[in-house]
Amino acid sequence: MLDEHGLPGFTMEAVARRAGASKATLYRHWPTSGALMVDAMDATFEPFPVPDTGHVQTDVAQLLTAFVALLEETPFPRLLAAFIDAAERDPTLATLHADLTRRRREPILVALTRAREGGQLPSHLDPELATDLLTSPLFYRRFIAHQPIPPSLVNDVVARVLGAWR
Amino acid sequence: MLDEHGLPGFTMEAVARRAGASKATLYRHWPTSGALMVDAMDATFEPFPVPDTGHVQTDVAQLLTAFVALLEETPFPRLLAAFIDAAERDPTLATLHADLTRRRREPILVALTRAREGGQLPSHLDPELATDLLTSPLFYRRFIAHQPIPPSLVNDVVARVLGAWR
Repeated sequence: MLDEHGLPGFTMEAVARRAGASKATLYRHWPTSGALMVDAMDATFEPFPVPDTGHVQTDVAQLLTAFVALLEETPFPRLLAAFIDAAERDPTLATLHADLTRRRREPILVALTRAREGGQLPSHLDPELATDLLTSPLFYRRFIAHQPIPPSLVNDVVARVLGAWR
Repeated sequence: MLDEHGLPGFTMEAVARRAGASKATLYRHWPTSGALMVDAMDATFEPFPVPDTGHVQTDVAQLLTAFVALLEETPFPRLLAAFIDAAERDPTLATLHADLTRRRREPILVALTRAREGGQLPSHLDPELATDLLTSPLFYRRFIAHQPIPPSLVNDVVARVLGAWR
C-alpha cells in the first residue's frame, strides 16, 4: 500500500482489506499504522556485509553501489519517501527512522575505521562526517534533485571524499 | 494543510474549507492539488542573493547557513517532505521538484564558478559535484538521519569539500 499509494493510502483499514484480514487481526500485531510502517521498512532492508578487498576505496565503492541498486528498486525508496513525510509529524517514527539510518551507515563506518587503523586513511579522518559526505549525495539525487545516479558518480564521490582528508 | 497534516490531509476539499472558499473557486486557480502544491512550495522559498566577500569559503558558508535556517523553520521542510512522497507517484511533481532544486542550487554554483575563474579554486574542480557534496549532508541530516545540524557542521563540510580538489 505504501509502495503504490504512499502515505495517503496507508491506513489500517486499507491494509487489512488488501491482506484479506480483519482490522482486529491487524491491530493484534501492530498497535498503530506507524508500528506497521516501521516493520514494513525494516523488511525491505538487510544490512550489507562489509567487503574486505584490502582497498578501502573499493570496499566503500562496493557498499555504495549496492545501496544505489536498493534506491533504484521498489519498494525501498517509496517506503523511505513515505517515512520522510510521516516522520515530520510523528516523533516516534523520526526516532525509529534515525535508528534504521544508523544501522544502514554501520558497514561504511566499519570499513572507514578499519582502513584508518590500518594506515590506509589518515588518522585525522572523521568517519562520521566522511560517511555523511559519501552517502548523502545518493539520497539527494534520488529524492531531492530527481536525477539519475550514473555509475561513475560513486567512484567520483569516493575519490573526492576520501581524498578530502589528505 | 501540508505543514500541519502532510500529504494525507492535503485535499482540495480540506484546503477550500480552511480558506473559507468553495472548491469551485480553488479549481479555477489550480486544476489539481499537485499544481497547488507546487505554488505553495514556491511561495516558501526565495533564492538567496550570492554573497561576495572575496573568500569563497565564506560565501559558500553563508549560503549554507541561510539554508540551514530555512530547514529549521516551518513550513519549508514539511512541504519538502510532503513533496518527496508525492513525487514518487507523480512524474509531473518530480519534474517540478527537480526545477525548484536547480533554482535552489544556483547561488552556490555561481559562487564556485566565480571563485574557480578568479583562481581561488583549482580549475579542475567540478562545480556540480561540489554543490552536491556541499548541500546534500544538510538534507540528509534533516530528513534521513533526523539529527541536529550543529553550526560547526557547515564549516567542516565547506573546508573538506572545497579541499577535496586541491
